[in-house]
Amino acid sequence: MANKKIVSRDVDFAKWYTDVVSAAHLASYSNVKGCIILEPYGYLIWERIQEIMNKMLKASGHQNMAMPMLIPENLMKKESELIEGFAPEVAWVTEGGSNKLEERMCIRPTSETLFSDYYSNIVKSYRDLPIKYNQWCTVMRWEKETRPFLRGREFWWQEGHTVHETKEEAEEETRFIMDNVYKKLFYDYFAIPAITGLKTKSETFAGAEYSITIESLMYNGVSLQSGTSHYFGQKFSKAYDIKFLNRENKLEYAYQTSWGVSNRMIGAIIMVHSDDDGLVLPPKIAPIEVIIIHIGDDLEIKTLANTYKEKLENNEISVTIDDSSKTPGYKFAEAEVKGIPVRIEIGRRDLENGKVTLVRRDTKEKKEISTDADIVSVIKEMLDNMQSDMLERATKRRDKMTYTANNLEDVKKIMEGTPGFIKADWCGSLECEQKMKEIKGLKSRCILENTKPLTGKCVVCGKEAKDLVVWGIQY
Amino acid sequence: MANKKIVSRDVDFAKWYTDVVSAAHLASYSNVKGCIILEPYGYLIWERIQEIMNKMLKASGHQNMAMPMLIPENLMKKESELIEGFAPEVAWVTEGGSNKLEERMCIRPTSETLFSDYYSNIVKSYRDLPIKYNQWCTVMRWEKETRPFLRGREFWWQEGHTVHETKEEAEEETRFIMDNVYKKLFYDYFAIPAITGLKTKSETFAGAEYSITIESLMYNGVSLQSGTSHYFGQKFSKAYDIKFLNRENKLEYAYQTSWGVSNRMIGAIIMVHSDDDGLVLPPKIAPIEVIIIHIGDDLEIKTLANTYKEKLENNEISVTIDDSSKTPGYKFAEAEVKGIPVRIEIGRRDLENGKVTLVRRDTKEKKEISTDADIVSVIKEMLDNMQSDMLERATKRRDKMTYTANNLEDVKKIMEGTPGFIKADWCGSLECEQKMKEIKGLKSRCILENTKPLTGKCVVCGKEAKDLVVWGIQY
Repeated sequence: MANKKIVSRDVDFAKWYTDVVSAAHLASYSNVKGCIILEPYGYLIWERIQEIMNKMLKASGHQNMAMPMLIPENLMKKESELIEGFAPEVAWVTEGGSNKLEERMCIRPTSETLFSDYYSNIVKSYRDLPIKYNQWCTVMRWEKETRPFLRGREFWWQEGHTVHETKEEAEEETRFIMDNVYKKLFYDYFAIPAITGLKTKSETFAGAEYSITIESLMYNGVSLQSGTSHYFGQKFSKAYDIKFLNRENKLEYAYQTSWGVSNRMIGAIIMVHSDDDGLVLPPKIAPIEVIIIHIGDDLEIKTLANTYKEKLENNEISVTIDDSSKTPGYKFAEAEVKGIPVRIEIGRRDLENGKVTLVRRDTKEKKEISTDADIVSVIKEMLDNMQSDMLERATKRRDKMTYTANNLEDVKKIMEGTPGFIKADWCGSLECEQKMKEIKGLKSRCILENTKPLTGKCVVCGKEAKDLVVWGIQY
Repeated sequence: MANKKIVSRDVDFAKWYTDVVSAAHLASYSNVKGCIILEPYGYLIWERIQEIMNKMLKASGHQNMAMPMLIPENLMKKESELIEGFAPEVAWVTEGGSNKLEERMCIRPTSETLFSDYYSNIVKSYRDLPIKYNQWCTVMRWEKETRPFLRGREFWWQEGHTVHETKEEAEEETRFIMDNVYKKLFYDYFAIPAITGLKTKSETFAGAEYSITIESLMYNGVSLQSGTSHYFGQKFSKAYDIKFLNRENKLEYAYQTSWGVSNRMIGAIIMVHSDDDGLVLPPKIAPIEVIIIHIGDDLEIKTLANTYKEKLENNEISVTIDDSSKTPGYKFAEAEVKGIPVRIEIGRRDLENGKVTLVRRDTKEKKEISTDADIVSVIKEMLDNMQSDMLERATKRRDKMTYTANNLEDVKKIMEGTPGFIKADWCGSLECEQKMKEIKGLKSRCILENTKPLTGKCVVCGKEAKDLVVWGIQY
């Protein structure tokens, strides 16, 4: 009984995706080209993600703050790689009120310039360091083709910008964010077995010395760059003059990092876990974990529903009762489309037998429990199982869709079927990277670290391999 | 022992204000003209306000969501009063990437247009109503003169936009937000005895049928418009074609409201409560309620500090220990400048007598307590007292600075001294309102409701009075 508003994901994955987004009321198109409206249910998921990340970031000494949304062109130009990277895709404000501006300003596509300019004013001594700031905001990039959550002109994200006394500390921060914040977020909360590694030179962030990326594999085998953490070394501090007196009382340029994840993560959650009935949300990020649906509404049913709600809420499980006048079938479908992890059905007949029915969203598995059962522990166990089962299933799929290739023939053969992650050795040359692109647009996703090459020969040119790279089709 | 970085508020109030903002690290100027940087401590206060308001708004059935930040010019133009009101003060985006846009777009100065356009798509039947959405975002108005928190090109705010089936319900919402959200926020959390009432026609929001305002009186007698709630009737629904099938199965234009408060509230908190030593924060919105300062750092002192911290945190009181190597005097001044409500001083000598010292930020009152005392209840009582004392003091000052005037001579006489709220009857004509402005810029703050005129004669023209109005100098 698939949802009528949603095409099957095996028939038309792209349409299935947008169908799920709109059927679950996560986002809708606006009359502002390329910009979406984040609807209340989508926003609740975003708030949940913010809550989880804020806890992690604050616990590790990061502080939230906020920068202006505009960047004067001159300020942007100070770091040449950055302006080259972003100039073609920014929105320019040229008029304020009724006057033409003397200098145009862009709406931030990212805020390295503003943070660096600010840091050049406030950093004086090693005693001022480290500074670990983060901001939640929207940024704007003038994309031509857009898709809800995956690519949009305006999108919601967090951007962290830190300044350190030493190279080591800055590199440690770059790693910390990837390993202890982003990876944790993906594995422990999103149930997504994302892989991490270095970006190749051509895919490195404009202005960074290196970028670490977290890449997820979607249900259809396509890869999604899901977050990045950049080490800047002294590139920005030299361009923006961020100097401090070090412990030897000498002036030194500071070491910086930046890192960000966006509402694209919501796109990843959809494309990894959801099905033809709509959204499937990992319990740990579901804004509503349990929905109670009446079948009939006599007093006994209502009382039990309220008792369950109270007990669960007292144990910090978010619950809602659907006591609307819609039919049970309609309510079930709606709860499914929204991906609510567990549904409790309370019906007259079951109740007479002292039972209620629980249904898990991911497997549709039904479980009858006695009305005497301890509802809190039953639900907690169900949610925990669902969370870990979802990660396990996604991991199995990822592993099944991860291939190894020793030469171009292997690569082409793999790409005749469903794509996935392709592991293959690489010599490090841009030329070979571009040759891979000719095969259905394959791009390097990341360089695996601390792993040995497969054959020791570049998959393209056959020369000595430098790295083992994961390749894939990207969103 | 006033803070050296801060001029006295009785000497130069304007400079005192910006001194406090920067000494407490609430905000700093950026290199983007007219835009501030919200520094971590300022942002923490903003997060605290958001937390309090989200709780109130969600409990009353409001939902957060998010709209695009850009508005195409054509969409903006649909409601003629709105575009007339805002056109002179918006920032226009005219180029995207390397191309000139076919139609320019403004950065939202407020989002009635976007919400109304969206509602015209999703509202079909009375069953879809009410819709009660809110968004937290920044908006942009091209102001010429700016001051941190009070007036800025970009500012942080929430804007609520609701749609209703009936006039009555929409008017009730307009009132509900003012009386049960904003007023509560000001009285119960900010300890600010703000007054509320209707705006006169000339001060009503562009496109609204009427606006209710909340106005606070600053330490120097100047008034600050601190939030507004607007009733739109069907003005926007007619301009944007928001129609629904009503219970009689007839098409009807919907009834709307909008309401907002901004980071200007932080400015109000500063100008009502703070002093020459810096910020004074009402405990209920202080990000840090208690600071523990060591004098000396032997094991016994440290242990006691940690025990206190743990006990207080277990009771949901936010605490920090300043165990830096700075001198106690420096630490005291820093805690004061940040407005931390209670300071616990733990020193060697006191400890030998089985005592520690507590100091309240607002009164500087010192209290010695025995180390055997129940720290949680002592602190709780102190915070509660401080919260209510602050409201009481502010109320006394407001009452002392609230004058009544029966004629223009009275008004002029009052305005020779420190300004304040001036109550005076008004005939309702724009002409008389403008005559009042000639007296040092006096403007109507609000029309008091359910109160009788003082003399029954307009304070300016002497003709029959329609309303009792509160007048004041505005920020």
